[in-house]
Amino acid sequence: MSEYPTSIGHSDADSITLLGHDLAGELMSQVGFGELAFWLVAQRRPSVGELRVFEAVLVALADHGLTPSAIAARLTLTGAPESVQGALAAGLLGGGSRFLGTTEDCGRMLAGALGAGPVPDDDAVYDELATRIVTDAREARRVIPGIGHPVHKVGDPRTPVLIALATEAGVYGAHLRLFEAIGRVHPAILGRTLPLNGAGTCGAALADLGFPVETLRGFALLARTAGLLGHIAEEQRRPIGAAIYDHVDRAADYRPDS
Amino acid sequence: MSEYPTSIGHSDADSITLLGHDLAGELMSQVGFGELAFWLVAQRRPSVGELRVFEAVLVALADHGLTPSAIAARLTLTGAPESVQGALAAGLLGGGSRFLGTTEDCGRMLAGALGAGPVPDDDAVYDELATRIVTDAREARRVIPGIGHPVHKVGDPRTPVLIALATEAGVYGAHLRLFEAIGRVHPAILGRTLPLNGAGTCGAALADLGFPVETLRGFALLARTAGLLGHIAEEQRRPIGAAIYDHVDRAADYRPDS
Amino acid sequence: MSEYPTSIGHSDADSITLLGHDLAGELMSQVGFGELAFWLVAQRRPSVGELRVFEAVLVALADHGLTPSAIAARLTLTGAPESVQGALAAGLLGGGSRFLGTTEDCGRMLAGALGAGPVPDDDAVYDELATRIVTDAREARRVIPGIGHPVHKVGDPRTPVLIALATEAGVYGAHLRLFEAIGRVHPAILGRTLPLNGAGTCGAALADLGFPVETLRGFALLARTAGLLGHIAEEQRRPIGAAIYDHVDRAADYRPDS
Amino acid sequence: MSEYPTSIGHSDADSITLLGHDLAGELMSQVGFGELAFWLVAQRRPSVGELRVFEAVLVALADHGLTPSAIAARLTLTGAPESVQGALAAGLLGGGSRFLGTTEDCGRMLAGALGAGPVPDDDAVYDELATRIVTDAREARRVIPGIGHPVHKVGDPRTPVLIALATEAGVYGAHLRLFEAIGRVHPAILGRTLPLNGAGTCGAALADLGFPVETLRGFALLARTAGLLGHIAEEQRRPIGAAIYDHVDRAADYRPDS
Repeated sequence: MSEYPTSIGHSDADSITLLGHDLAGELMSQVGFGELAFWLVAQRRPSVGELRVFEAVLVALADHGLTPSAIAARLTLTGAPESVQGALAAGLLGGGSRFLGTTEDCGRMLAGALGAGPVPDDDAVYDELATRIVTDAREARRVIPGIGHPVHKVGDPRTPVLIALATEAGVYGAHLRLFEAIGRVHPAILGRTLPLNGAGTCGAALADLGFPVETLRGFALLARTAGLLGHIAEEQRRPIGAAIYDHVDRAADYRPDS
Repeated sequence: MSEYPTSIGHSDADSITLLGHDLAGELMSQVGFGELAFWLVAQRRPSVGELRVFEAVLVALADHGLTPSAIAARLTLTGAPESVQGALAAGLLGGGSRFLGTTEDCGRMLAGALGAGPVPDDDAVYDELATRIVTDAREARRVIPGIGHPVHKVGDPRTPVLIALATEAGVYGAHLRLFEAIGRVHPAILGRTLPLNGAGTCGAALADLGFPVETLRGFALLARTAGLLGHIAEEQRRPIGAAIYDHVDRAADYRPDS
Repeated sequence: MSEYPTSIGHSDADSITLLGHDLAGELMSQVGFGELAFWLVAQRRPSVGELRVFEAVLVALADHGLTPSAIAARLTLTGAPESVQGALAAGLLGGGSRFLGTTEDCGRMLAGALGAGPVPDDDAVYDELATRIVTDAREARRVIPGIGHPVHKVGDPRTPVLIALATEAGVYGAHLRLFEAIGRVHPAILGRTLPLNGAGTCGAALADLGFPVETLRGFALLARTAGLLGHIAEEQRRPIGAAIYDHVDRAADYRPDS
Repeated sequence: MSEYPTSIGHSDADSITLLGHDLAGELMSQVGFGELAFWLVAQRRPSVGELRVFEAVLVALADHGLTPSAIAARLTLTGAPESVQGALAAGLLGGGSRFLGTTEDCGRMLAGALGAGPVPDDDAVYDELATRIVTDAREARRVIPGIGHPVHKVGDPRTPVLIALATEAGVYGAHLRLFEAIGRVHPAILGRTLPLNGAGTCGAALADLGFPVETLRGFALLARTAGLLGHIAEEQRRPIGAAIYDHVDRAADYRPDS
């Protein structure tokens, strides 16, 4: 009775097999780590162009300085220095709807609008789809994931780089194209111009690489894992967690009656 | 007042800086994801040879099939399918002393034995250090991290590949050398021959790359993040979590009185 | 500058204050643990009747045997036995939409239907509200949180006990009343009779105690924490995690090509 | 084939059994939540005196204001407001060696010194055991868990209350007695007087209740769960997470070259 199908890997006394290949003989030193991550999720090896865009996305999302997620990881290490996995997990748990969620939410919105049918090939169709997205969001008073940024109010420097790279690598597809159409049409509808942000562009680029939308947040988390390890290593050699705690404790305003 | 020093990154309205470089202009598409992870933790860019060994370590540690950690991640997704970050965090939390800990424990043991002084250059000295490690562990009835494996009882296929790769890349150093010496001397002391396992070899190789021992578990966790994303994506498209739950529930033997 | 208002607690060299009371002199041994949990979230002390229903809810939700969440906690302990906090966190992370979410989802649905206005006092109005909820859900092909149960297909034994207890304690309110109306009206609309389940009843009872709906999942998690500690302690003295891993590993069906 | 023994609970179509009792008929409204938590871990129902001390311990450990753990939970909610379980898990993950660990570490130290033999009944024997503990720690430059406190430098207000309560309830035993002996003997050995802190006293009291030492951290985590729910509910109605992030971000001192 074989109950649990899996295509990822298995091992026996003499060998370890991953994705149908011998780990030691065929993967180690012949496949990069980013490439392996792509392959594990997509169940297919990326082309050179796909890999270039994919790694650029991971680099783009790896870190944003002392974010709530990085601070939570550092404070967790302050209380449990013996458990690096706990500090990392705490940092990743902040990767929810408000921050890391944008990548997936944007990809999901674009994929939903494009549907399952054939990909349109006319800019007018993209503008029309984009107009509907923006108009619907406006009417429902919903935020459009992927546009606007609290810091990069005029333009997110990652966006043009990723779009150029996807174009150059031959993997610019319908999702990025629709995302750019949103960039074109939204000012007339919303009455103000918002930048296409990096997290949203990453979501569009990942969707163009063929990933199902429910896997996109995972890549944002993988990217962030590298950033969090940087913060955890820095916290180990030059801690700031105790100072943050001290500040918050001193600046607390205790109001028992409210 | 600048209270919280950090060397990782920051951003302003027009730019994002990471590790002293412009993220969009200097890092995206010019630095791979594995390379960035090395850089974030080490605070220096790896050489080509270092990077090759580093990525091989991450590939070696990425996945081991349906481990307790992968099963925990899948079961967590069963209960909370909306929270990929929760499933990933649950999987990483199993990366403790018994499984993922070996990489760090082995590196720590080797670094401790080598001390802070100049690196020895004589095989006899390594054999002597190794003999002391094995003898001390034997007397204290302590397990020696990095030797022995529940499945690969004769030899772990990752070990010779990593050692050859480190040698070829010019980054074979004192930690791998001492680890190999343990492989040579332990049979005479323990009365049986155990293989140098892959997780231990990875720890020795990472220590040879200059990483402080307290950062090693983090790399095992980064590697495992890729594997867990593979399991989470597979769980999303062909779930087994409910079947595992069903099996455990049916095979439970309820004994209220013990 | 007082930046962070909080009403929970603070301490100085000689005293610890919690909720405006001296912890050592006024709370320890005079307030039960369940009572304190109520107070911490509601910012007011419960009446005797409220507390009785509240503790019954926590008891009702504490454990359900070897659930995915309990198994995930045990498997996490298998890998990281030194980190009880990691095993507990892993177990809680499965407390998402499919399992523990019902309590909050049901309370939210009921509170939404009742709105902010005065509470109706006529059974006909409740039946009408309930009819609208069920009809809307049916049309949208949405599941109604709180009705139906995979195991207790006819009736959940917790439901009548909680309702009787709330009535007796004088805290049976509009949420439980509307929930019971759903129980009355849904068979005619859906064409089959589903039980009011325990998790949903708990959500209705907690909403009747005046808790904001966004706090309800927290109580389900608190209750489950006690159950998970039971599982973790049992796993420490008579482990089953390794046997579950072994079963899954042996029953894995490796299919590299799919 | 019955593979997984468990004494906690199970359910079938008509009933839910917990700890050998019918959940709906025998436990709900007849057993308090604290009592159930004791029972789940100890596998026996507490006496009235035991329960009183146990609940006082949980109340004593429930909250300490804006600790690193509470701040981490709040920051996690800032990033992922949809996942209360993630925020709670992040807060609990900080319950490691430095903060919540004291309860377990102190209980473990006392239990280790008392050993498995008959309990001594002579103050001189306790003083001798205590002298050995303090002298050994001093020589090994180890911290003695349970004495000293960063805020309560002279005396922790929880300590005398717990000791009086345990005495009154008839559950003052060898662990508390040895802990008090440490309080008597350490000034002469260490050359300064440190208070017996609340977390340590709680560990001694729990050990006197008969709990195995490896379960003690779990109770500290259960207590803290209530406190964290208070912080999470407060964060939902009057958030400070974004303000803390803002402060840290503004006070960051970016030093790319170190």
